[in-house]
Amino acid sequence: MQFSAETSANGVIEREFSVGDVPGVLWSPTSGSAPLILMGHPGGLHKKTPALVARAHHFVSNGFAVASIDSPGHGDRPRSEQDEAWVASMLAARAAGQSIVPIVTEYNMSLSERAVPEWQATIDALEKLPDVGPIGYCGMTLATAIGIPLTAVDSRITAAVFGGVLVYDALFEAARQVTVPLQFILPLHDDELPRDPGLALFEAFASPAKTLHATPGNHFKVPWSETEDSTHFFIRHLNL
Amino acid sequence: MQFSAETSANGVIEREFSVGDVPGVLWSPTSGSAPLILMGHPGGLHKKTPALVARAHHFVSNGFAVASIDSPGHGDRPRSEQDEAWVASMLAARAAGQSIVPIVTEYNMSLSERAVPEWQATIDALEKLPDVGPIGYCGMTLATAIGIPLTAVDSRITAAVFGGVLVYDALFEAARQVTVPLQFILPLHDDELPRDPGLALFEAFASPAKTLHATPGNHFKVPWSETEDSTHFFIRHLNL
Repeated sequence: MQFSAETSANGVIEREFSVGDVPGVLWSPTSGSAPLILMGHPGGLHKKTPALVARAHHFVSNGFAVASIDSPGHGDRPRSEQDEAWVASMLAARAAGQSIVPIVTEYNMSLSERAVPEWQATIDALEKLPDVGPIGYCGMTLATAIGIPLTAVDSRITAAVFGGVLVYDALFEAARQVTVPLQFILPLHDDELPRDPGLALFEAFASPAKTLHATPGNHFKVPWSETEDSTHFFIRHLNL
Repeated sequence: MQFSAETSANGVIEREFSVGDVPGVLWSPTSGSAPLILMGHPGGLHKKTPALVARAHHFVSNGFAVASIDSPGHGDRPRSEQDEAWVASMLAARAAGQSIVPIVTEYNMSLSERAVPEWQATIDALEKLPDVGPIGYCGMTLATAIGIPLTAVDSRITAAVFGGVLVYDALFEAARQVTVPLQFILPLHDDELPRDPGLALFEAFASPAKTLHATPGNHFKVPWSETEDSTHFFIRHLNL
């Protein structure tokens, strides 16, 4: 793990790092040990997209450390030819008023397969830092498509907030392996993410402690109060 | 408003009171002003049923005052002949494996019509006490059947937690008049309270700020974390 830059403002230390080819960022309180929240970004965005940074700062102000990495072909990482083709097909389908579901399903499955081992290598590296406590995972849409299979295979993640994800069979299979406490955010009025498959995915999680938070509007309109609820959830489950 | 008894333990003052024929109880912190949460009890129970007292104490330990009253024909209040007939029919239907829905609908509508003005008189009295802040309402099942029409007509209630209620037309009509921030708790696996009408009722509320919390199991199995979530919700909306 290489740290390349460090800044500090408003009680938050921000450190850019890389693990192999994967660039990441770690936000932490200025002192003491802290539980660690892994945050994933939505599809098409990156590790420091503004809404993610705002939530990360909120978590840090409540005593957590937060790590975020660029997904394959996102942020500072090059897209493969295949990734370029998926993105082009998706944009073409959307422009033509056709369903993007088959393309996003294929693309998300591929991204998820590549991202899970990258997150695991990142956790390996972060664990070696001093003052790292229990680990949670937080993220919607693409970050949930990656987070569910990650949480299913990596027992170091002990609590998770997911939601607003395009549902496919492999995701159901992974959800059935997830047993940690979780909150699942379901946008109730989302043209691209219908309600019933989201509810069915929530039912599939094996977690005894799970709550679904359904909010009006689509996944672009999740209210800030969900960030506060996620904070309370992680305080409860990550021993803060 | 008559106070009849006062005790104090663990930082909670408990005062029994009556407003007209209606007996109630007020729990408050030992000092300072506090937002007030009105708590309703489930059908068949009473103002000091143990699960309600536990939640009330949790609210008080977070800085709130809490008031609870006996519903008509519940707790220390006599049942009318008509109430006795409804309860007998309900028990007979349940014993015979028949649906209790038509009976509970009629009974809840009647209880609600009687209870709303009683709550309003209680609020009139409580408002005159020193140190009473903004007012919220909290309660499931029968307490929601009463709380929705109460909140629809009384603008002093500025935030509410409802849930797990048998749904009928009058309740939809009242929900369409409710505009305050709310959380709605929906048990996902409840033989007596099906999921879809609960979801439809949630959709009917006019409140711009509303979140549905869906939990596995029936309305007897709502996890304690919902009490913590309600606390955070009221902290957010009652200016604590």
